[in-house]
Amino acid sequence: MKRGVAGLNEALIGQPGSRAELETPALLLDADRFEASLDRLAQLARLSGMGLRPHAKSHKCAAIAVRQMAAGALGIACAKPGELLALFEAGLTKLMLTAPVSSRLKIDRLTAAAARGLELIVVVDRLELVAAFGASARAAGTHVAVLIDCDTGLGRTGVTTTEDAVSLGRAISAEAGLVYAGVQAYAGKVQHVFDHQERRAANDLANARLTPILVGLRAAGLAPAIVSGGGTGSHLLDFEDGILTEVQAGSYVLMDEGYRPVDFHGTGEPVFDFAMLVVVSVIGHSANGEAIVDGGSKSFAVDGPPPRVYRDGVEIGTIAWAGDEFGRVKTYDGIAPPPAGARLECTVPHCDPTANLHDFIHVVRGERLEAIWPIEARGLSD
Amino acid sequence: MKRGVAGLNEALIGQPGSRAELETPALLLDADRFEASLDRLAQLARLSGMGLRPHAKSHKCAAIAVRQMAAGALGIACAKPGELLALFEAGLTKLMLTAPVSSRLKIDRLTAAAARGLELIVVVDRLELVAAFGASARAAGTHVAVLIDCDTGLGRTGVTTTEDAVSLGRAISAEAGLVYAGVQAYAGKVQHVFDHQERRAANDLANARLTPILVGLRAAGLAPAIVSGGGTGSHLLDFEDGILTEVQAGSYVLMDEGYRPVDFHGTGEPVFDFAMLVVVSVIGHSANGEAIVDGGSKSFAVDGPPPRVYRDGVEIGTIAWAGDEFGRVKTYDGIAPPPAGARLECTVPHCDPTANLHDFIHVVRGERLEAIWPIEARGLSD
Repeated sequence: MKRGVAGLNEALIGQPGSRAELETPALLLDADRFEASLDRLAQLARLSGMGLRPHAKSHKCAAIAVRQMAAGALGIACAKPGELLALFEAGLTKLMLTAPVSSRLKIDRLTAAAARGLELIVVVDRLELVAAFGASARAAGTHVAVLIDCDTGLGRTGVTTTEDAVSLGRAISAEAGLVYAGVQAYAGKVQHVFDHQERRAANDLANARLTPILVGLRAAGLAPAIVSGGGTGSHLLDFEDGILTEVQAGSYVLMDEGYRPVDFHGTGEPVFDFAMLVVVSVIGHSANGEAIVDGGSKSFAVDGPPPRVYRDGVEIGTIAWAGDEFGRVKTYDGIAPPPAGARLECTVPHCDPTANLHDFIHVVRGERLEAIWPIEARGLSD
Repeated sequence: MKRGVAGLNEALIGQPGSRAELETPALLLDADRFEASLDRLAQLARLSGMGLRPHAKSHKCAAIAVRQMAAGALGIACAKPGELLALFEAGLTKLMLTAPVSSRLKIDRLTAAAARGLELIVVVDRLELVAAFGASARAAGTHVAVLIDCDTGLGRTGVTTTEDAVSLGRAISAEAGLVYAGVQAYAGKVQHVFDHQERRAANDLANARLTPILVGLRAAGLAPAIVSGGGTGSHLLDFEDGILTEVQAGSYVLMDEGYRPVDFHGTGEPVFDFAMLVVVSVIGHSANGEAIVDGGSKSFAVDGPPPRVYRDGVEIGTIAWAGDEFGRVKTYDGIAPPPAGARLECTVPHCDPTANLHDFIHVVRGERLEAIWPIEARGLSD
């Protein structure tokens, strides 16, 4: 039997009306919304002639990654070696590690997977890491593709100067076991700028930092085949600008309250609907009649705006937290608190750490539970 | 092999110096501090003549619960049926469910466990729930002990009037399959009041709401054998007042930055040291030289004050979040950023949801990794 609430819900798969009968708290993927978002971004990328390398840090789920590949993705991006190796064990073979590491044991696990068929791309931001990946790849009898990690304003990892980028590019090219593949430049600070024009200005600033590095690399004979970056927030700008060769969008297939205010296309209209939801149950009522539900900070990552709450498809209010295991439904004016036992579907404050709280995601289509997918890389932020 | 980072660290158990070599991010339990806190609260309870029923919502770990039982606990409190059943499967047999539920399937799982040897106590706050537990217990051929859930100011679940409490007490007593056992009154709002006198005033207010209910129950021939409540924040007040018969403290064995400012004994001195830590590694540096570590909101629950960071036992700064997988070390004045590969031990903003992020807890004593314990109820907030 599956672990936790998924084990209680397994018998409901395929049953009519099962969506309304789920034991809770359960993480949901609305299949119709998910597929619409999957197709929409894939189509925009095709029209622009650019690539997509969806980031699995958002969902950590092999079944979702497989569908992203089927929709034309170049490969899947991963934040950590543990997440990447879990997806490799689940059958994904084109995987990129988007952050530097400092553990030789983890590097050796990655190159060992490359020797077993993983098409691995990694990023480096310092010469020691080039040497470490090279030595490990040689010991494993394999080759690893390497990008230069560039910082265009995020202030996290990556080099900021053309000189450092060229120096790393030469070191990668000279290191047996490594293949120089280009550049990563993730403009993380751009993604959640709500206003379209302000976001364009922020992305232009990131590009203004990246462009001289790209020019310098080309002049040094290190023309990057891959320029990877961008995300859900900046995808349209990145497709228009054509400076990147591929976009690492993650949240688009799930969506959350933190991203929802972003005016993605400058039209004021939502582009991606809430495909990720958490269904909770009313377990009782407070003394003043508010419905108390069985989901708190152990079922929702709470680092974002409060969830909106739906009953039978109608938005009835929002959730205020009432402890780590409980929430308090704040119904809108004129809406009665739902009774004990009622199932309520809620959007999530922040999708990435919410997916990380659940072992399984319940795939629902219309009024039916269609499947339960494991979240293989849940908890593997190592 | 154990899942995730614990699998990478298994070979280090018992090795000299292994604490400094852990692969990361890894959840730690400092065994000496844990045992000191375990013993200290157990001793205070003994001196007061009151009971302890430690709350497993904080740690979700059977090995910790077993040690709490060995230190004299009456039983273990659990927030959710999934958490409770996971601890029962792991060998704990005296378990209390501290919140109402609304799922007949979950109720049936609980009574089925009672039929297999679980000494179960549950709480109810409405007549339908009395009937549901009674019917389920009878169908399972077992008996369940039941407490009346009273709201003394938390505003979550529970009755607020003597009339409702007496009505529930009579219904429980009359229901075949149920045994009336007393009252639960959890004063959740009291726990995090920092100042000792203000906390005493808040606890007095909760007691002033509880006392007439207890008097009314006794007058109705429903004298409660159990009056369960309290927590880490109010433990000393509860031991002094003697109104409760037992305290449901949870965080005391782990401790976090959210609880640390609470002046538990009115002495200005810490009572419980930070037994729970997360060890992270420096994976690189930002352009301005800050150390970037491999722990973010997927390794730390971030709903609390920022972690303090220790290197080789010396506090060197705090963490600012740099994405869901990363942190940024803000070193104190005059302290150099640690180099790539350095292991840093961090306190946690909030212990309960942090434990819920990890599959295993690494037990360290001095400079050695002593054991790796599974967190059996991780993710089981159903």
